[in-house]
Amino acid sequence: MGLIVQKFGGTSVATAEKIHAAARRAINAVQRGHKVVVVVSAMGDTTDQLVELAEQVCTVDGKKIPPPKREMDQLLATGEQVTIALMAMALHAQGYSAISFTGGQIGLVTDDAFSKARIKSINHQRILNELEQGKIVIVAGFQGVTPDGHFTTLGRGGSNATLVALGAVLKADVCENYTDVDGIFTADPRIVKNARKIDRITYDEMLELSGQGASVLQTRAVEFAKKYNVPIEVRNSGNDNPGTWIVAENKTMEHIVVSGAALKKDLIRVTIKSVPDRPGIAATIFATIASANIVVDDIIQNVMDDNTANISFTVEHGDLADIKPVVDQLITELGSPTKVSYQDGLAKVSAVGVGMKTHTGVAERMFKALADAKINIQNITTSEIKISCIIAKEDGPRALQVIHDAFELEKAR
Amino acid sequence: MGLIVQKFGGTSVATAEKIHAAARRAINAVQRGHKVVVVVSAMGDTTDQLVELAEQVCTVDGKKIPPPKREMDQLLATGEQVTIALMAMALHAQGYSAISFTGGQIGLVTDDAFSKARIKSINHQRILNELEQGKIVIVAGFQGVTPDGHFTTLGRGGSNATLVALGAVLKADVCENYTDVDGIFTADPRIVKNARKIDRITYDEMLELSGQGASVLQTRAVEFAKKYNVPIEVRNSGNDNPGTWIVAENKTMEHIVVSGAALKKDLIRVTIKSVPDRPGIAATIFATIASANIVVDDIIQNVMDDNTANISFTVEHGDLADIKPVVDQLITELGSPTKVSYQDGLAKVSAVGVGMKTHTGVAERMFKALADAKINIQNITTSEIKISCIIAKEDGPRALQVIHDAFELEKAR
Repeated sequence: MGLIVQKFGGTSVATAEKIHAAARRAINAVQRGHKVVVVVSAMGDTTDQLVELAEQVCTVDGKKIPPPKREMDQLLATGEQVTIALMAMALHAQGYSAISFTGGQIGLVTDDAFSKARIKSINHQRILNELEQGKIVIVAGFQGVTPDGHFTTLGRGGSNATLVALGAVLKADVCENYTDVDGIFTADPRIVKNARKIDRITYDEMLELSGQGASVLQTRAVEFAKKYNVPIEVRNSGNDNPGTWIVAENKTMEHIVVSGAALKKDLIRVTIKSVPDRPGIAATIFATIASANIVVDDIIQNVMDDNTANISFTVEHGDLADIKPVVDQLITELGSPTKVSYQDGLAKVSAVGVGMKTHTGVAERMFKALADAKINIQNITTSEIKISCIIAKEDGPRALQVIHDAFELEKAR
Repeated sequence: MGLIVQKFGGTSVATAEKIHAAARRAINAVQRGHKVVVVVSAMGDTTDQLVELAEQVCTVDGKKIPPPKREMDQLLATGEQVTIALMAMALHAQGYSAISFTGGQIGLVTDDAFSKARIKSINHQRILNELEQGKIVIVAGFQGVTPDGHFTTLGRGGSNATLVALGAVLKADVCENYTDVDGIFTADPRIVKNARKIDRITYDEMLELSGQGASVLQTRAVEFAKKYNVPIEVRNSGNDNPGTWIVAENKTMEHIVVSGAALKKDLIRVTIKSVPDRPGIAATIFATIASANIVVDDIIQNVMDDNTANISFTVEHGDLADIKPVVDQLITELGSPTKVSYQDGLAKVSAVGVGMKTHTGVAERMFKALADAKINIQNITTSEIKISCIIAKEDGPRALQVIHDAFELEKAR
């Protein structure tokens, strides 16, 4: 008998029928003697529909005006609130006592980075009280409130952040992440047809994979799970197949050299040229960008002969509208001769595995496979358990398959 | 230069275009030098769609299970939250600074009578602070929170309660209630084709009219407006016609004998027979019913020869599911020979006017008109400014027209 936090993504709660199916999973866990907390996302494409509504309202005379982010979060937070109420009703209709909470109602306090807020604290006592009374507790994923009571959302995959944060503060035995796929795959199965479901993967591998474009679990959700050592099982809400367990590293996992491969499909490289080469300048640049809540991918700096530096970094294509005004402002402040250029049409392909730490030749094997496929590598970055190559966007899917083949990821370990 | 609270009902904010039209009205008031607070309802038929979703979820094996009211309010509160965010975005897109608030965010605290909550207090300082900063403040109608932070809704027409409560606490110069009709009519124009828009009406008349079935303004909204002497103007959001002003009584209004007529279309009469005729028994009965938050219409009590009493009262047909278990329980407790019967298929037609206080013959004229039309009166109740007759449901629309004709309400005063 333990405490389980279950999370159901948008596709798993898209209809009344699916909500009932999710409710039955919670009930099943209760019947096995567990206390159950359920985190839900907005139903199906609700969030997209709300974004579409906002775009309609924010288009005046054919011109799109970006909505205030606070109001966008005010709008989007309604999606999950609908689902929690319906989930509580479904449990009640099936004869079980349940109570639903918005992020604000369980004191899920975040910073005020609207649209990308970070969780600061959760009033877990309120949840424990309801569990003690025999209730199933339903919590709205993806949302919180600032200390002043403004609604915030946690960014893409934010419901997973809610799942893991609850798992941590409630000291849950497991966080079950129900989604529309069977688990974590060796690569995106929509691109690599012979991709294989992974049975167990370490937090670090998952971090690298999600950081490099695998979209099932958001990076910060995994970071949190690692920090508090909360096991996550990623499962399919549509079947009873065992999923992928995301756990702390152990000895037996080291013999797997490469666990998976990932692709970031659409990147832009920002290059700032002729930056005065004085101490602290890079810190200033990236502090400015970070204060605008933009996530920077790889960074490269070269010092030139004329005592200036070129600094490049990549960002998601979708973040361009956010980053351009910030960088342009920065360039104005730095003054001549510093200038900026933006290169789009890029992608990044990565191979990830804890076994890299103890095995050699992984990088060579990856570069050779790409070279054999005549895919040009523009840039390379590595970590202890990851190798990434920046390539042309149009080569992305093929490069992912080539790497998958090179490490024979389709074969069970 | 003053402070105006404007409220836009669901049909007035049903599309992005209509939201912009409503935003322009707020801007227009700002340009005339006023501070503006805007209260909005859920867009179009959003609330109906949410209720429909809840019904789907609450139907198990073809059986409907009533949803927990707390969860229903949790669900319904999302409707207005969507509109406030979009309204703030629309104002922003038109170049004006705005901020949206849910009921909870402005500390609109209610009791915990879910689905029919009553407003206890509002943190108006938060609104005033934003107005001081030059912002247009958008507030979600129809909703509040309990002191414990549970979401509540204020019942049918609850956005009007929000409008008037804000008008009162902010000491507004006027509450403009924008809807899809030109104002208050002498009778429901969907039933009485020659119904006429009223220019000015007293709080008391409006109270009687809305209590008797006129649906534009909810009773408690008018009570509140009367208590704090907040003038309300009911206007059409689709045109610039002057609306109906609802104001305190003054001498010039007394010459109008009957201002309007109203119809409650679908009532049930609950008759409790053979109630022991001892002091306090009626109080017990109605206290029990009131504690279940059911609004009782007319009450009739007759003492019988056998020292028992028959107590009848009418309720809205839609409240039957709520009231039946309460009354059945009560009958069980009172024991034999007390029993209950339910008669449906009733309606109530009323004539209302402050002039009744000083004019005679109004009742006779009304009864004669109904008799001439061969409409049987089952029951009569009166107040100082109102006469009501219970009749058969199928006679309702015709009775309304007959009374309208009898008092020549179509003629301008």
